[in-house]
Amino acid sequence: MENNTIVYGKNAVIEALEANNRTFNKILISNNAHSDSKIEKIKELASKQGIVFQFVNMQKLNQIEPEGRHQGVIAQISPVKYIELDDFIEKHKGELTKVVVLDGVEDSHNVGAIIRSCVCAGVKGIILPSRRGVLINSTVEKTSAGAVNHISIIKVNSLVNAIQRLKENDYWVIASDHHAKDNYFNIDYTNMNFALIMGAEHAGISRSLLKLSDFVVKIPMLTNFNSLNVSNAAAIILFEMVRQEVEKNGKKK
Amino acid sequence: MENNTIVYGKNAVIEALEANNRTFNKILISNNAHSDSKIEKIKELASKQGIVFQFVNMQKLNQIEPEGRHQGVIAQISPVKYIELDDFIEKHKGELTKVVVLDGVEDSHNVGAIIRSCVCAGVKGIILPSRRGVLINSTVEKTSAGAVNHISIIKVNSLVNAIQRLKENDYWVIASDHHAKDNYFNIDYTNMNFALIMGAEHAGISRSLLKLSDFVVKIPMLTNFNSLNVSNAAAIILFEMVRQEVEKNGKKK
Repeated sequence: MENNTIVYGKNAVIEALEANNRTFNKILISNNAHSDSKIEKIKELASKQGIVFQFVNMQKLNQIEPEGRHQGVIAQISPVKYIELDDFIEKHKGELTKVVVLDGVEDSHNVGAIIRSCVCAGVKGIILPSRRGVLINSTVEKTSAGAVNHISIIKVNSLVNAIQRLKENDYWVIASDHHAKDNYFNIDYTNMNFALIMGAEHAGISRSLLKLSDFVVKIPMLTNFNSLNVSNAAAIILFEMVRQEVEKNGKKK
Repeated sequence: MENNTIVYGKNAVIEALEANNRTFNKILISNNAHSDSKIEKIKELASKQGIVFQFVNMQKLNQIEPEGRHQGVIAQISPVKYIELDDFIEKHKGELTKVVVLDGVEDSHNVGAIIRSCVCAGVKGIILPSRRGVLINSTVEKTSAGAVNHISIIKVNSLVNAIQRLKENDYWVIASDHHAKDNYFNIDYTNMNFALIMGAEHAGISRSLLKLSDFVVKIPMLTNFNSLNVSNAAAIILFEMVRQEVEKNGKKK
């Protein structure tokens, strides 16, 4: 991870929080850190600003800042600003809008490639959970080929609440799951707002999100090797939507 | 790169070549290496066995073997065996066969993800040029989730010759190029042998290969952000083929 994407050390993190001019992904605190007044202050400032803090082991912190000068505290900074889901919904009222929801995707290259495909396919927003999976970091930014700057990136504390908000606002919810019965290409994507949920690399989509989904679809395979990379799976579904749009609206492209 | 994927040092490389029980990707020789009798022997043995050797700068060698014990010579070992194009063609005579040709794709993660999608989509072979782009290494193997073991991997010295051989054997050649006029979904993929050519991340497909192609197709976008990751682009085209197969053959999957 590049240095401009983290702030480490107790005082530096307190200063960054007080300055309040950067976008934080989350703050990692060693579970061995003595809970001194500075750590308490960091937790307090983070809570006030709605920034997630997580307790992790020292090894994790040493991986991120190998020189060991982190004093048990590392704040991860985002290269982009996140926007609020309600603001996003409001902004796109009255137009057909597509969003992609990543349920804990863990590999930065995958997240970057997915965002790139989203922008190509006219998807307007991407929703990431604040506690699981990766948020936007410099690897995501680079792998996205700059696409992170052409899409609204929405960070939420609860994907369940986010999906419910979307449903209340006339979004259909589509989940990609390889146990599904229906094929992804049997949906007509052209006439609706939708949120497409893609699951984590190994765990797939959480049960609570599957329950909220209006459509659960699979990508059929021609062999028994049933294991697509998640960014490839997202691209396949999104470009089926694009295919339908192009076929419907004639040769405009 | 893991240690079991390289052999370095003059004597070790000579021994590996003489033992002749491993699959070599290529041999990298420092362009500052004194052309002594051992280097000459390495070049001679490599030539005899049809193994490519390339002259590179010391920096490249130091990246691959950072401890600097390589003496100006590193042999890259493949975790898989390559097969000959003619053997592949012969093996699949009489069945509809699909292959993917990578024209110098440089990122191991992309090659791994493409091979994974290929196996899911029933593609039988993947063709890689011996001198440009990546061959099969441990990162490709890992990113492919083991798919490298479920597909024929064909390494060729000339992609032009390979494409010509395929055409002589009733393969249609499809090139993916974003300058194309035709959309990829207007081809009927279900009734032919085909070779799908995907270009390098930045350079795209070589002109000589475009000239040999029967179809040049693009993936239309819904925005001006015209820049898909190459593994996503490959997945989109291959799974349009799968969609057509599934639609044609009913609900067998």
